[in-house]
Amino acid sequence: MVQPTPAHFFQTVNAYQQSAAIKASIELGVFTAVGEGYDTAESLAARCSASVKGMRVLCDFLVIHQFLTKEGDRYGLAPDAAMFLDKNSRMYAGGIVGFLLLPEIRQAFDDFTAVVRRGGTVLSEGGTMSYEHPVWKDFARSMMPMMIPPAEAIASIVKANEKAPMKVLDLAAGHGIFGITIARHNPNARIHAVDWAPVLVIAREHATASGVADRWHALEGSAFDVEFGGDYDLALITNFHHHFSPSTIETLMRKVHKALKPEGMAVTLEFVPNDDRVSPPDAASFSLVMLGTTEKGDAYTFAEYQKMYQNSGFAHNEMHRLDGSPQSVIVSRR
Amino acid sequence: MVQPTPAHFFQTVNAYQQSAAIKASIELGVFTAVGEGYDTAESLAARCSASVKGMRVLCDFLVIHQFLTKEGDRYGLAPDAAMFLDKNSRMYAGGIVGFLLLPEIRQAFDDFTAVVRRGGTVLSEGGTMSYEHPVWKDFARSMMPMMIPPAEAIASIVKANEKAPMKVLDLAAGHGIFGITIARHNPNARIHAVDWAPVLVIAREHATASGVADRWHALEGSAFDVEFGGDYDLALITNFHHHFSPSTIETLMRKVHKALKPEGMAVTLEFVPNDDRVSPPDAASFSLVMLGTTEKGDAYTFAEYQKMYQNSGFAHNEMHRLDGSPQSVIVSRR
Repeated sequence: MVQPTPAHFFQTVNAYQQSAAIKASIELGVFTAVGEGYDTAESLAARCSASVKGMRVLCDFLVIHQFLTKEGDRYGLAPDAAMFLDKNSRMYAGGIVGFLLLPEIRQAFDDFTAVVRRGGTVLSEGGTMSYEHPVWKDFARSMMPMMIPPAEAIASIVKANEKAPMKVLDLAAGHGIFGITIARHNPNARIHAVDWAPVLVIAREHATASGVADRWHALEGSAFDVEFGGDYDLALITNFHHHFSPSTIETLMRKVHKALKPEGMAVTLEFVPNDDRVSPPDAASFSLVMLGTTEKGDAYTFAEYQKMYQNSGFAHNEMHRLDGSPQSVIVSRR
Repeated sequence: MVQPTPAHFFQTVNAYQQSAAIKASIELGVFTAVGEGYDTAESLAARCSASVKGMRVLCDFLVIHQFLTKEGDRYGLAPDAAMFLDKNSRMYAGGIVGFLLLPEIRQAFDDFTAVVRRGGTVLSEGGTMSYEHPVWKDFARSMMPMMIPPAEAIASIVKANEKAPMKVLDLAAGHGIFGITIARHNPNARIHAVDWAPVLVIAREHATASGVADRWHALEGSAFDVEFGGDYDLALITNFHHHFSPSTIETLMRKVHKALKPEGMAVTLEFVPNDDRVSPPDAASFSLVMLGTTEKGDAYTFAEYQKMYQNSGFAHNEMHRLDGSPQSVIVSRR
């Protein structure tokens, strides 16, 4: 056993500075500039319109936190940063700071003592889950690239490549990437995407860019209120349930159950911690995000989802953990 | 090489939630309650006047971040938390969240892009370094327990136990623990502590509690302005230089040099990164704290201190890294 030190406590108290530093790095375009070959504090400062001292301190901090490398005075991109934080990468995901660090989300954690006392968000109007909340539009634009790998995983799980006719209900579609990816793999798939109208504008852009717009249909409104229609082969419920209470999830899943063909399948993408609720760490810690930003949301375990889904008419549920992702896919049938 | 994933980026973007969670844990007294034997979400919620759900999510997050342990549904204190975060521990340091997470410090990082552009704090009045700033009083009270180990290390380095007559100048004394610890070990030491009057009130309380008040004298005012007197055997400059530019540090060290006997010694306690400026991580990342909260401060390397000190008349400088601390001691002589 190592001697206890206050170092880890200090690091945790000051952890908010990591958020500030990564946000500034994205806003200044530091990773993109390093990718272009600017590799000293001086040249990066000039390129990114910053002070040399500020750039030196920021870049050293990014080295300490493993986003940059350093050899002598020269900085380079660490592998994660090269793939996700350089704007010239196809997988660029830096835009999510625009969503995840919006003042209206961060302020949910300003008085976290009050959140823990209350057992849910202290933001007005039920936190971010309010449908018309403008954050969802930012979210739809910025989160899409990150969701390509799980979208491909889902397309594979539902055997989109077999090209069977497939009527797909894509709930709370957001950026639309989950349904769109299935449509890209399966020319006989038709997607019906449900979300708030302003968000679906963005999803439609993505459908058009992917060449599937003729098989992609918008159902504007809340998943709780809009008429789904029926005879679906597949329903996608991706990153949606975590905003709600078990009883609300059951209500929605009963509606999904009714819209599916008897042999139809519901596919859920979620943060699903193990029964211990502390592993895997990224899935388990998502419950804190939901505590801070929603009235009743949580990161539910598979046992909890099984119970909710069985109560909603889905007798058979199986979970697939996704490689390289904090998320899991649950496949549910009658 | 592991496949790049966005997980580490996400964790860093959301790192501010760690600060929020640890602050709430301290404010709610979670660690103290666990130390008292309350070990389930239900019993802790009752003890800390919180909701069961909020307490469950918070405690699981503290397990993920290694402040608590979990066996079944029962939580326990991890070693760091038992020593530093339980109010019944002599080494309790939880109070530092009151200082380090004051809104006036955190807001220094709200627009860190502007900080990097400017190369220094965007707070008015030069950030926290303004002498009359009320944060220093909070600081003096809350940081003291954390400084006991380095204070003991300094007392050992200056051979306080040999009990030689020793006139000590304790600059920016704050809580006063550095001079007081020497006085405790050496009954022939007299301490002259410099700091702003309201802070010295707290230092005097500590001197009285330690039984050394008769050999402890206050010199009220700024270290830059107050008359030190002369014939000092030892000057302590602890956690002070990092707020200032090299030229300001040289000005102060020339004043210290004049106040010391010819064979006198200056002892500096500081965050001193290696020449690479990215190791050790806790010392190196302190430069970001100074960038955000001061006009011109930094975590200077030993080579930089050597140069400043030589320019101020101290030809001989040696550094001691402290075990279990992110800080180092520099011993300087003519």
